[in-house]
Amino acid sequence: MTTRAAPPLEALLHPVRDDLAAVEAEIARMTATTAAPLGRLLGHIARFSGKRLRPALTLIAARLFGDVRPDHATVAAIIELIHTATLVHDDILDESAMRRRVETVNRLVGNETAVLLGDYLFATSFKEAAALEDRFASRYLSEIVAIVCRGEILQTHHRNDFDLTEETYFRIIEDKTAALYAAALRCGAVLAGGSGAECDAASAFGLKIGCAFQIVDDILDLTGEEEAVGKSLGTDLDKAKMTLPLLRLRERAGGADLDRFRRALQSTDTKERRSILPLLGEYGAIESARRSAETLVEEARVELKRMPNRPERALLLQCAAYVMHRDR
Amino acid sequence: MTTRAAPPLEALLHPVRDDLAAVEAEIARMTATTAAPLGRLLGHIARFSGKRLRPALTLIAARLFGDVRPDHATVAAIIELIHTATLVHDDILDESAMRRRVETVNRLVGNETAVLLGDYLFATSFKEAAALEDRFASRYLSEIVAIVCRGEILQTHHRNDFDLTEETYFRIIEDKTAALYAAALRCGAVLAGGSGAECDAASAFGLKIGCAFQIVDDILDLTGEEEAVGKSLGTDLDKAKMTLPLLRLRERAGGADLDRFRRALQSTDTKERRSILPLLGEYGAIESARRSAETLVEEARVELKRMPNRPERALLLQCAAYVMHRDR
Repeated sequence: MTTRAAPPLEALLHPVRDDLAAVEAEIARMTATTAAPLGRLLGHIARFSGKRLRPALTLIAARLFGDVRPDHATVAAIIELIHTATLVHDDILDESAMRRRVETVNRLVGNETAVLLGDYLFATSFKEAAALEDRFASRYLSEIVAIVCRGEILQTHHRNDFDLTEETYFRIIEDKTAALYAAALRCGAVLAGGSGAECDAASAFGLKIGCAFQIVDDILDLTGEEEAVGKSLGTDLDKAKMTLPLLRLRERAGGADLDRFRRALQSTDTKERRSILPLLGEYGAIESARRSAETLVEEARVELKRMPNRPERALLLQCAAYVMHRDR
Repeated sequence: MTTRAAPPLEALLHPVRDDLAAVEAEIARMTATTAAPLGRLLGHIARFSGKRLRPALTLIAARLFGDVRPDHATVAAIIELIHTATLVHDDILDESAMRRRVETVNRLVGNETAVLLGDYLFATSFKEAAALEDRFASRYLSEIVAIVCRGEILQTHHRNDFDLTEETYFRIIEDKTAALYAAALRCGAVLAGGSGAECDAASAFGLKIGCAFQIVDDILDLTGEEEAVGKSLGTDLDKAKMTLPLLRLRERAGGADLDRFRRALQSTDTKERRSILPLLGEYGAIESARRSAETLVEEARVELKRMPNRPERALLLQCAAYVMHRDR
């Protein structure tokens, strides 16, 4: 894995563009309602449709292990809806005001409605999964959502924990983020009729790039420009979440800098908390975290060897490169 | 339906006590986990186990239309778990501090964790439903949860709406509360092999007593003693929710009292808001709301005639009486 820039995601996903359009149609169908306040909220949600990376991974896995079937678009849409539900609830937890360049639901209509809208999206996802002929998605995805919640609860539990271990950090990101990437790939593979070993490889690939994705997210939260990234940043520091770059700073800084860092993280003053940002560069903490993400992508590449040698395998590798080199 | 006091719920449910014990075992199994912070939270949730009225209705319907099967205990536990998830999220929306005599989750560990714990409980419910051999519960209950959320969203949308219509009020309570009662009865009937008409009658009975239950809840929120009811009260006034007693007061009060009521509801001062409580008695607003609940129970009684004449039919009627005459 080199560090050269990845092509824009849209160009990258050109081979699956028609299938992605079917996913969009499914999302629109699932979120259609005549109930007035709900409809308006779902319309707002549609405005912050994201990169659709997870649905794309489902579709790519489908082609790699067999053929894209109608159920693939439905399951990909369900996974995106689950992802959206977690975002709506995350934005409450993080008190975020901006997401994909539009106002968050909590900002627009308050925390109460944001809680309920997230619940509605979860329920709709499960409803759609339960309606499928094949029972796999329904059983598997409800399990995955429980894992995602478990990871988020563990993360919230460790807020303000300056001594968080790397082991716990990785358990958190595997559960809260990577599990859904793994699910996106496994669903694609299973519904296409992939063998047990192939489906496991697809899932393992997803888990690795999902972890890498979260590490890059954690880096962007500390170093990105809100304008470029399109969402509220700095929330990890504000919420005293020890992400990988901060763990690496803690490992490397000593003496007065370590004390200053510890104090800053516990401070209620935004300026004081953010005053430690230059230390991240000085101690190479960002670079160290990025190298760990690159190692994960390397490990993901190894999983690809257990998959059929078809063009979609190269496409998965390009998606992994995108995860590393995206700026939003 | 007379207004004589109902027997205590425990005595009432004596005929299904063994089956209820099986439901408790299922709830314990579903909420068992080795993950540390999550386990502690689920342990706390167990402390505020409630009346188990919904599971009891599932079991009674099972006996009325056939036999109690192992799936009944599982589905009844799932329904109770769904109910618990909505309570955990409701307590956030209402900023409640007390629930069934113990601290609410939001009070104990903050809103963030309460959001996530509710999500975890929803996901666990869906996981358990999806694991059942019979697909009915999984498909039906995910639909019901979406309806419950829709009702809650509509209610939140109409906060501070002094002009809320009764039609909208009833739409809200049918969705947010009664739908799950209807589901408890329908699941019991369907899994016991009831006919289509029988299952519809069971569901209609549940919808009626569910609405009555919510009206009584709304009355208790205005007139109950926190010590007796065991949960935070007065939250409807605090959140400017126009419940049925308040709608009846609006209808009956005139002139200065109506103006005072309107002002009080919009006031940010707790004392001013609560100053209108005596008006509820003066204008017979509580009694009027209670009569509407009694009419619903009468309508529920009519549905019973479409069911087999077995002892469980009388038991359902006693449950309806309990709904009316409970003090918590």
